[in-house]
Amino acid sequence: MDFELEGYVAGMLRDIKERGIEAVREYSLKFDGYDGPFRVTDEEFNEALEAIPERDREIILRTIERLWEYHERQMEKERLFLKKGSLYGLIYRPIRRIGIYVPGGKPLPSTLMMVAVPAKIAGVKEIAVAIPPKEGRVNPYVLYVAKLLGIDEVYKLGGVQAIGAMAYGIGMKKVDKIFGPGNKFVNEAKRQVFGVVGIDSLAGPSEIAVIADGTAEKDYVLADLLSQLEHGKDSRAWLLTTSKELAEYCSREGIEVVLCGSLEECTEKANEIAPEHLEIITARLMELVDLIENAGAIYLGPYTPVPAADYFLGVNHVLPTGGAARFSGVLTVRDFLKPISIAQVSREEFLAERELGLRLAEIEGMAFHGRSMEVRK
Amino acid sequence: MDFELEGYVAGMLRDIKERGIEAVREYSLKFDGYDGPFRVTDEEFNEALEAIPERDREIILRTIERLWEYHERQMEKERLFLKKGSLYGLIYRPIRRIGIYVPGGKPLPSTLMMVAVPAKIAGVKEIAVAIPPKEGRVNPYVLYVAKLLGIDEVYKLGGVQAIGAMAYGIGMKKVDKIFGPGNKFVNEAKRQVFGVVGIDSLAGPSEIAVIADGTAEKDYVLADLLSQLEHGKDSRAWLLTTSKELAEYCSREGIEVVLCGSLEECTEKANEIAPEHLEIITARLMELVDLIENAGAIYLGPYTPVPAADYFLGVNHVLPTGGAARFSGVLTVRDFLKPISIAQVSREEFLAERELGLRLAEIEGMAFHGRSMEVRK
Repeated sequence: MDFELEGYVAGMLRDIKERGIEAVREYSLKFDGYDGPFRVTDEEFNEALEAIPERDREIILRTIERLWEYHERQMEKERLFLKKGSLYGLIYRPIRRIGIYVPGGKPLPSTLMMVAVPAKIAGVKEIAVAIPPKEGRVNPYVLYVAKLLGIDEVYKLGGVQAIGAMAYGIGMKKVDKIFGPGNKFVNEAKRQVFGVVGIDSLAGPSEIAVIADGTAEKDYVLADLLSQLEHGKDSRAWLLTTSKELAEYCSREGIEVVLCGSLEECTEKANEIAPEHLEIITARLMELVDLIENAGAIYLGPYTPVPAADYFLGVNHVLPTGGAARFSGVLTVRDFLKPISIAQVSREEFLAERELGLRLAEIEGMAFHGRSMEVRK
Repeated sequence: MDFELEGYVAGMLRDIKERGIEAVREYSLKFDGYDGPFRVTDEEFNEALEAIPERDREIILRTIERLWEYHERQMEKERLFLKKGSLYGLIYRPIRRIGIYVPGGKPLPSTLMMVAVPAKIAGVKEIAVAIPPKEGRVNPYVLYVAKLLGIDEVYKLGGVQAIGAMAYGIGMKKVDKIFGPGNKFVNEAKRQVFGVVGIDSLAGPSEIAVIADGTAEKDYVLADLLSQLEHGKDSRAWLLTTSKELAEYCSREGIEVVLCGSLEECTEKANEIAPEHLEIITARLMELVDLIENAGAIYLGPYTPVPAADYFLGVNHVLPTGGAARFSGVLTVRDFLKPISIAQVSREEFLAERELGLRLAEIEGMAFHGRSMEVRK
């Protein structure tokens, strides 16, 4: 834990909570050089839409269709069962209102697609998007994606102030859960508002690990490793290989090469790393998948490079980083749904099994719990 | 957010991280009056088991069986599909090692059952339990439940020091995710270590809301409302009713009574509260369920009181509190599993759709992402 960062962000959030919109305006001016109205207007939407070439509209539409096709299979149905006249199970309800943070470093329309598509499939009714403005403007592609997905609530807000505004409801209606990646300040702010609102996960710098043997095309492997390093200087790329030749070929700055005695050893190393993305380009594929415990995503074979998954395969690119794949997974429709426990117990079953509850309440010293079960006839 | 609590807990966690086992020992002595070895020994296990009467062993066994039967239906299977020679989908892996916090205020063997049963079903391999000792000892029922579920790693550790020890791996192997309810200090500590490890949810004081009409037995409703108030002085109980008579009958200290014009109005009020537990005891049941968006659990009809669900129905009693039902749900087997995205794309599909990725990489200014897609033939 970075206690300095923690204290810095905690101070900003406290200030935002206490002084409200004034504080948000000040931070916005300081960090984004912006002091206009936060919400994107209809005129700005229209201008942006006109700026997108026809060809790009088609590209984006096809990409969203692919995402939709993949994610709609993830929708949860209720899971109910009957037993001795009783009904038990889970039902699912969408979260009513979410916030999506889109980082401004590079304009990332794909981030908005990746979060908003599963949200829409889940049935989320209200979506607020926050994105840091550049010279007072929002990237037109982000606005086009928003429009396509029926999102008209976009705010020119970045950093800790965006997270504070969404979590505390400053300059907008409070959201129930915040999604989307960001820099370390945004991440720390999300971590700190967790509890006040829900959050998706804490996305850090990009990571790729490639398990490859002598059958892999060296060019492909190297290009994939380098692709993830362009996200930023904190990004990491590991090559886990049984091929000395490949190891040498990929020995470049930024790439961590591990020469292993066997492919099984490569999978062990991958499990230790728990990488965001894991490519497996080997003669044996599914047998190795069997051995993987910790990874955000597993991409198999020579035609599944991470950038393809990042952009157009339809799979989600919001994935756990920094070892979080040990305890969390890829973003799914389920992250926009809440399972609600449901039960309707029959008189017969209740009376037949009540003694269990009565004794447990006694053991735990809960007299009124006991009374509530006893009073029923 | 309680900034004072936050600072206090942050200070303790920092101290624990920096000074390790020494700090844990000091806090343990200060807060639990304990300075012996932390891990429960085989002798202590055996003593505890001998202390449990035969009848209670049977009660606990039957309760665990009911929990098992309910939760095993929640196990996730992989979700794969084929498309144009490509394979896409999700696979699930259990979290390897978890920590379960069992609060010490009242000895709560049921808490351990509720968390450990779905963990075992998910396939979690290592489970560490932390429970604050009382006069140096752990409640024998908790140890019995642990033994039954094959858990031999139990630590006499409470409060912030327990959470710190599990998250940073002090006096034990670091866990991947921490589960279980606790007081406000434990909750705040869980919130703060989130990111270092995963956490389940932030359990606060118990809550019940009852929607009831004139057909409900007044005694049952009152007993249920009172049952949740015995958890502690911060617990809350709401009666949402169309019946003036019932409203008057339940007007007792601690119960918040709302007289509504219709049952639909009762459901609106319930959605605003987003209660941990919602009982519906009315002539119409499922029609009202349809209107509920925010609740941890919905218990229907006269024979599904919250205490029955707390103890023996088999449903899970780890539920979102304090309005968290707006963004999170009941504990399920899924909380012990990680979805991993998987894809194996065919050459044909890759080449046919690559243009989408190439253009999106261009729009986002990611040259090496483009290169990784371009290099493939």
